[in-house]
Amino acid sequence: MTNDIKIAVVGLGQIGIYLLNELNIKKKDIELKTGKKIKVVAVSARNISKKRRFKINKKIFFKNPLDIFKETKIDILFEAIGLSDGISKKVVETALKNKIHVITPNKALISKHGDLLAKLAENNNVNLEFEASVAGGIPILRTIKEGLSTNKISKVYGILNGTSNYILSEMRNSKDSFSNVLKKAQKLGYAEPGNPKLDLNGFDAFAKVRILSSLAFNTLISKHKCLMEGIEKIELKDIEIANQLNLRIKLLGISEIINGSLFETVHPCLVSKNSYIGNVSGVMNAVILEGKPVGESILQGEGAGPGPTSSSLLSDLLSILKGNVKKPFGIPHIKRKSIKCYNVNNYTNSLYLRFEVKDKPGVLSKITNRLAKYKISVKRLIQTPDKKNNKATIVIITHKTNELNSKNCLSIFKKDKDILNYPTLIRMYN
Amino acid sequence: MTNDIKIAVVGLGQIGIYLLNELNIKKKDIELKTGKKIKVVAVSARNISKKRRFKINKKIFFKNPLDIFKETKIDILFEAIGLSDGISKKVVETALKNKIHVITPNKALISKHGDLLAKLAENNNVNLEFEASVAGGIPILRTIKEGLSTNKISKVYGILNGTSNYILSEMRNSKDSFSNVLKKAQKLGYAEPGNPKLDLNGFDAFAKVRILSSLAFNTLISKHKCLMEGIEKIELKDIEIANQLNLRIKLLGISEIINGSLFETVHPCLVSKNSYIGNVSGVMNAVILEGKPVGESILQGEGAGPGPTSSSLLSDLLSILKGNVKKPFGIPHIKRKSIKCYNVNNYTNSLYLRFEVKDKPGVLSKITNRLAKYKISVKRLIQTPDKKNNKATIVIITHKTNELNSKNCLSIFKKDKDILNYPTLIRMYN
Repeated sequence: MTNDIKIAVVGLGQIGIYLLNELNIKKKDIELKTGKKIKVVAVSARNISKKRRFKINKKIFFKNPLDIFKETKIDILFEAIGLSDGISKKVVETALKNKIHVITPNKALISKHGDLLAKLAENNNVNLEFEASVAGGIPILRTIKEGLSTNKISKVYGILNGTSNYILSEMRNSKDSFSNVLKKAQKLGYAEPGNPKLDLNGFDAFAKVRILSSLAFNTLISKHKCLMEGIEKIELKDIEIANQLNLRIKLLGISEIINGSLFETVHPCLVSKNSYIGNVSGVMNAVILEGKPVGESILQGEGAGPGPTSSSLLSDLLSILKGNVKKPFGIPHIKRKSIKCYNVNNYTNSLYLRFEVKDKPGVLSKITNRLAKYKISVKRLIQTPDKKNNKATIVIITHKTNELNSKNCLSIFKKDKDILNYPTLIRMYN
Repeated sequence: MTNDIKIAVVGLGQIGIYLLNELNIKKKDIELKTGKKIKVVAVSARNISKKRRFKINKKIFFKNPLDIFKETKIDILFEAIGLSDGISKKVVETALKNKIHVITPNKALISKHGDLLAKLAENNNVNLEFEASVAGGIPILRTIKEGLSTNKISKVYGILNGTSNYILSEMRNSKDSFSNVLKKAQKLGYAEPGNPKLDLNGFDAFAKVRILSSLAFNTLISKHKCLMEGIEKIELKDIEIANQLNLRIKLLGISEIINGSLFETVHPCLVSKNSYIGNVSGVMNAVILEGKPVGESILQGEGAGPGPTSSSLLSDLLSILKGNVKKPFGIPHIKRKSIKCYNVNNYTNSLYLRFEVKDKPGVLSKITNRLAKYKISVKRLIQTPDKKNNKATIVIITHKTNELNSKNCLSIFKKDKDILNYPTLIRMYN
């Protein structure tokens, strides 16, 4: 690598434009730390004249990012479009094939095509860095790949979606409904204005879990989906009941090796109000690693937004500029193994079940009998009448049972006219 | 560097011997991750026949570590003796001069001679790595140097001494005295059996603060000592009063740039029971970084013991084996600047003051008058009589005042016969 480094930034949304400004501001600092002079020689976006927070140099603008490779020489490309396929994949592939280092915060792309792209990067002896794809400003990937590199990691879990964590925290604080708090989150820029679905249904957190797993356990990215649930079905009522029980609801992503199989999940969990994870609020992300010999490590930081994301993108840049050519997943692609998926039917938890029922005799015993039939024992039961509407809310905390058993047990309530909704189920975090 | 890497381990105490075993166990994993085969070709300690947890190969034993350089070719040396000067310094200097990479967990050495040794390493184009010197298994130095490398850090603080944190936590839990809990800590291996002074008087934490400062702010290691206090004077009484006030006592190390000057301190702090830092208990360490654009980052993990320390030592080893030749302090030695020390007289806090006094009329007013004279206003005052001994305890929480003022104000009580001890002062963390 020469001392003059030519950079392209593709995608000028919130993150791309913030990054462009940071590259400009930090030029001197980067030269001090690496001895390299960086210069942005190409930018690309769909719309040249869109109103943006920072100005762009229109002389280096490309409407079609693929033209950059034909018309300019570049050393490093930032991909900030954010699609899992299409032009994002095309741009990254083309860059790697042209021996151009790639840096991206795109978790959708990496969690879907990371194996293929890593192989391509290795074959062309360039870096593919994606620190910003998981947990914003927390350097969690680098910590697994380097800081804890010789530890045997057995579990990694945490709060990986800032949007969901903000909504759950804010519902609790403001006692407002899911839909109102979502609107507020959109206004504040914490949730996508157009389609926030991928944050709310657990998909975003699941993509991050997949990336974390493959780094922590040296495996290929899994294609299975053990269990993925988002926060869409959480009602204010659940949050308030949890509060009375000294619990909080958190969307956790969990990855763990159980008897040689990979267990990956994202779902809302009930955690103790006094636990560490129960106190990570707002848009904060937190990742907890269990490893040997290091013990338990915790990393917490802002999980979203252009500031934290830029921090990670620039750390990737510095790593490349320092000449640290690295395997994208820490070890050679060929040594990464596929791993079988844990049978989710065996996943075992205490459950929180909320039934909304008609307030009439026999309903409660119908529920408890059904639970008894499946040997699901009740640890706690709270029935609250709603006389006005001739309804009642029954909350049951069960002892531990597995997924298959609880699914079979609860299935009957789909058809029962006395049960007004299919029961809300939230797992207790062990 | 060839593919066969020759390693020496100097110092076979708790850490050295654990490391030796880990190097043996992790050989294959290290080869997988770096392509390098490691071999321990020399070990050294004062006593060859001391009883150790893991066996050593006596054929490669050197009584005098300096003989290693004369008799064997080595690539990487681990220094685990732990002295700030003497043979530790001599061994590290000789290694660097012989173009041998050095890895050490020795904070006393690095905080005292880090600048000199970094220069030596740079001149000889080898690595000097000391991740394990601060916060055990938490990869905090690598996080500052790499993961957050282009952030402008404004403050770094946290719980940096596991021994002190264990003692404070255990005094609270067991309601036992400082001296009894210290004995327990020594039995459990959490405190030095011989001389635990450096952990208890704040020295150990201060050495870590100095290393953190120089990395976070790109400065030479400071030689000043703004303010250093340990936990030796904390009594069970203080812990119990703090508890009643919904506070906890924690030994914090703090480093911050204030108006262009470096403020470094270690002292016990009163923090809220509900704060994050108030809930970091036992031998856990935690480091909090404030930076732009990343915001607040938190790293928590086990802070002491051979397991976490080994985790960091091996991460340093992998970094070297991957060929990442790095400046020991992130930027070239010549670019690191000295920085002036903040005037500690201006350090401003609310104070917790505990007076043990003779229970007689006029004593309380003597205290409050003196405080009033120095414009230190009282936020809260609790007087508890001890009729049996004709004594009373007066606890005062003040509004904010600076160090100079409080020192001047309190000085008079040294000579006052009605005040039975010089008042215990604990600063409230802002």
